Amino acid sequence: MLENDAFRTLDRQECLRLLAKVPVGRVVYTRQALPAVLPVNYSLDEDASVLLYTSADSDLVHAINGVVVAFEADEFSAATQSGWSVVVTGRATVVTDPADHERLSRTGPQSWMPVRDGVFVRVESELVTGREIKGAHTTR
Amino acid sequence: MLENDAFRTLDRQECLRLLAKVPVGRVVYTRQALPAVLPVNYSLDEDASVLLYTSADSDLVHAINGVVVAFEADEFSAATQSGWSVVVTGRATVVTDPADHERLSRTGPQSWMPVRDGVFVRVESELVTGREIKGAHTTR
Repeated sequence: MLENDAFRTLDRQECLRLLAKVPVGRVVYTRQALPAVLPVNYSLDEDASVLLYTSADSDLVHAINGVVVAFEADEFSAATQSGWSVVVTGRATVVTDPADHERLSRTGPQSWMPVRDGVFVRVESELVTGREIKGAHTTR
Repeated sequence: MLENDAFRTLDRQECLRLLAKVPVGRVVYTRQALPAVLPVNYSLDEDASVLLYTSADSDLVHAINGVVVAFEADEFSAATQSGWSVVVTGRATVVTDPADHERLSRTGPQSWMPVRDGVFVRVESELVTGREIKGAHTTR
């Protein structure tokens, strides 16, 4: 990837500010030895970890609990051919602490999907990277 | 994941029709044994494979040429809490045939990023899955 006036690397604070702007991101993981990706609602916790809410017995929870995943969010405009993308890479863990679960039940993410026997999943923001695309550089 | 009136599984034809609607998707792959994801412009070829255009010596090309990747595109509305997501899973291959490259130079995807020594990458649409979220089912 070329780094020049067409795109800019974002620092961690810029990344976290942008992550707080959109309601849907994508969990990137491995399922049966193949790359997999699932859009989910999310929010950021006080420590900047990414929080998801999903069914306890979902395929997603079985696949990611305890392993390192990537989480991506972005926003692009076709009109201006610009936008940003942020990727958080870190270990995903189901929240098992009752006090933490209770706190997140009040302040954590909501899901646009129905959730049965819901659990919160935390993705540690161990590595946070992002870039901004400034647009008007269409090439083929 | 629960399947009920809140979401619907999309068939292959619906998935391909939706994929043709948006200009940016995300390549999901493995980089240095970690899950990785990169937003890219794309288009669909006549055989429904996903086409990308990027620099020949990019990290992306080195990571995905010859291996199975996932490619995801989606569109969500916060206002209606609805949207769709499609995932194509298949082998990624740099287009090396000169006639194919020449054809794609006329009809293939354009990139919003500057590209140096550009190559087209084809992701075979071996497995195409998708779902529609119908909205108004917020849960926590």
